[in-house]
Amino acid sequence: MIQKLMEKIRRTGAPIVVGLDPMLGYIPEHITKRAFEEKGETLDGAAEAVWQYNKEIVDAVWDLIPAVKPQIAMYEQFGLPGLAAFKKTVDYCKEKGLVVIGDVKRGDIGSTSQAYACGHLGKVSVGSKTYYPFDEDFITVNPYFGIDGVKPFLDVCREEDRGIFLLVKTSNPSSGEFQDQLVNGRPLYELVGEKVAEWADTCMDGQYSNVGAVVGATYPEMGKVLRKIMPKCFILVPGYGAQGGKAEDLVHYFNEDGMGAIVNSSRGIIAAYKQEKYRKFGPENFAKASRAAVEDMIADINGALGRR
Amino acid sequence: MIQKLMEKIRRTGAPIVVGLDPMLGYIPEHITKRAFEEKGETLDGAAEAVWQYNKEIVDAVWDLIPAVKPQIAMYEQFGLPGLAAFKKTVDYCKEKGLVVIGDVKRGDIGSTSQAYACGHLGKVSVGSKTYYPFDEDFITVNPYFGIDGVKPFLDVCREEDRGIFLLVKTSNPSSGEFQDQLVNGRPLYELVGEKVAEWADTCMDGQYSNVGAVVGATYPEMGKVLRKIMPKCFILVPGYGAQGGKAEDLVHYFNEDGMGAIVNSSRGIIAAYKQEKYRKFGPENFAKASRAAVEDMIADINGALGRR
Repeated sequence: MIQKLMEKIRRTGAPIVVGLDPMLGYIPEHITKRAFEEKGETLDGAAEAVWQYNKEIVDAVWDLIPAVKPQIAMYEQFGLPGLAAFKKTVDYCKEKGLVVIGDVKRGDIGSTSQAYACGHLGKVSVGSKTYYPFDEDFITVNPYFGIDGVKPFLDVCREEDRGIFLLVKTSNPSSGEFQDQLVNGRPLYELVGEKVAEWADTCMDGQYSNVGAVVGATYPEMGKVLRKIMPKCFILVPGYGAQGGKAEDLVHYFNEDGMGAIVNSSRGIIAAYKQEKYRKFGPENFAKASRAAVEDMIADINGALGRR
Repeated sequence: MIQKLMEKIRRTGAPIVVGLDPMLGYIPEHITKRAFEEKGETLDGAAEAVWQYNKEIVDAVWDLIPAVKPQIAMYEQFGLPGLAAFKKTVDYCKEKGLVVIGDVKRGDIGSTSQAYACGHLGKVSVGSKTYYPFDEDFITVNPYFGIDGVKPFLDVCREEDRGIFLLVKTSNPSSGEFQDQLVNGRPLYELVGEKVAEWADTCMDGQYSNVGAVVGATYPEMGKVLRKIMPKCFILVPGYGAQGGKAEDLVHYFNEDGMGAIVNSSRGIIAAYKQEKYRKFGPENFAKASRAAVEDMIADINGALGRR
């Protein structure tokens, strides 16, 4: 699966991923209004607004980008209708040829992780039939349980040619509270990174692994170290843009081959029309604003990569 | 909310929780057969079997126990129909007066944790209306992101009188891979436990906090230490029975007042009819086997508590 992602990155020239994390507050009024007229001010109405918003953005940017990353929490907050909008979004993005990274951050003891792995990346058996319930290409995974919570995901990655990104160093301000604690003089995230590199070796797909890591754009010095610890892992980099990460800081997340990292922006793209820079588009043309923001992000990152 | 749980523990005399973690392999054939006849060998059929199985177990044990803990992964693996069965199970258990602990182990950066907190414990606004989408009483939370990933859950606990159990030391064999790493000479789980105790102080409900901890039954020595570190926290204890935890080992998870811990059993109860001890009930009477297993578990734990 990482080969598919790499091929799409090469074709688009865009080592980026658009985070489809729709908050109701981002969605232009004309869309929510229409959705509420149709389905009421209900969870179904909210889910419909989310779906229409996503669809218009995807239609506007799909040819520029290799991948999308829907954050399932933003859908799950609207209950079952929200999760139906998540599934619809996953399916639609796959139809458009996009690689879908489900940002689900699941992880549990072995038997439970296996259920998550089957539900999101793999298949379940029902009597004599099998189904791929959520059918994402990649998902994010929380490694706090250690190898027996991770192994079921690795198994499914191998069996189904799917991928995962394990949390190593997250982008939020307090990520250091536990992740930076020194273990034998080295931060815990380095230890996690070493384990991820080991696990990655067991899931190779060409010169890279189907097992990658999440390292926040907001900690570039740590990203530099982690790049070396996990040479065959793609790094999924949240925190660019709205959270404060800058393109110059991110060049060290990439390998010499220009591969090995994919930078996410969510709010900065999907709610671009709310920024001063893209305000001229207006709420009616929010998706065009998103397209312009994608083009600017690609130029920003490729510019920084060119200058290194 | 912890007061409600305590009152139910007092009334039933049962400091236990039944884990509703239905694997298709546990469900007696007469139930799956009927469900597949009605809905086909589909995700809907699987979800229907899960729901019928749960309902029969809940009907058989609800008067003996204070709480249930559905593990969402076991439902999520069947996609949207599975999640609908989860929601149906939550609602039904609440109707029966049971406290519902959603074992969801969510956790992310602040804005994302907020969405999970609203979706599972709190409410979301849609236009002028508000909804409680999943509406559990407690959920389990992964603390790997540090305080800003936890705070949105604490806020909802205070606003809505709900509760959480934060993962401190999980029950699985490899939990030590990261959780036991020594930080300044002390294991990481102790550091996490200290933070949980701090956070718990901000969410008090009587003499206990609405913020508790998950500590596996499989690590009794650690449970003893963590009991002291988090005196006002309830400890949710997975790993009893099928995973190997014994009642004698668990007495130190309780405080002197006989409160402060609630021991979970999943497979050991819901698939009791498959054990030699309860085989006489037969698959047709699987729910009666579950009731007998609940009675035995209560006697086992109370016996050990009496002997300490």
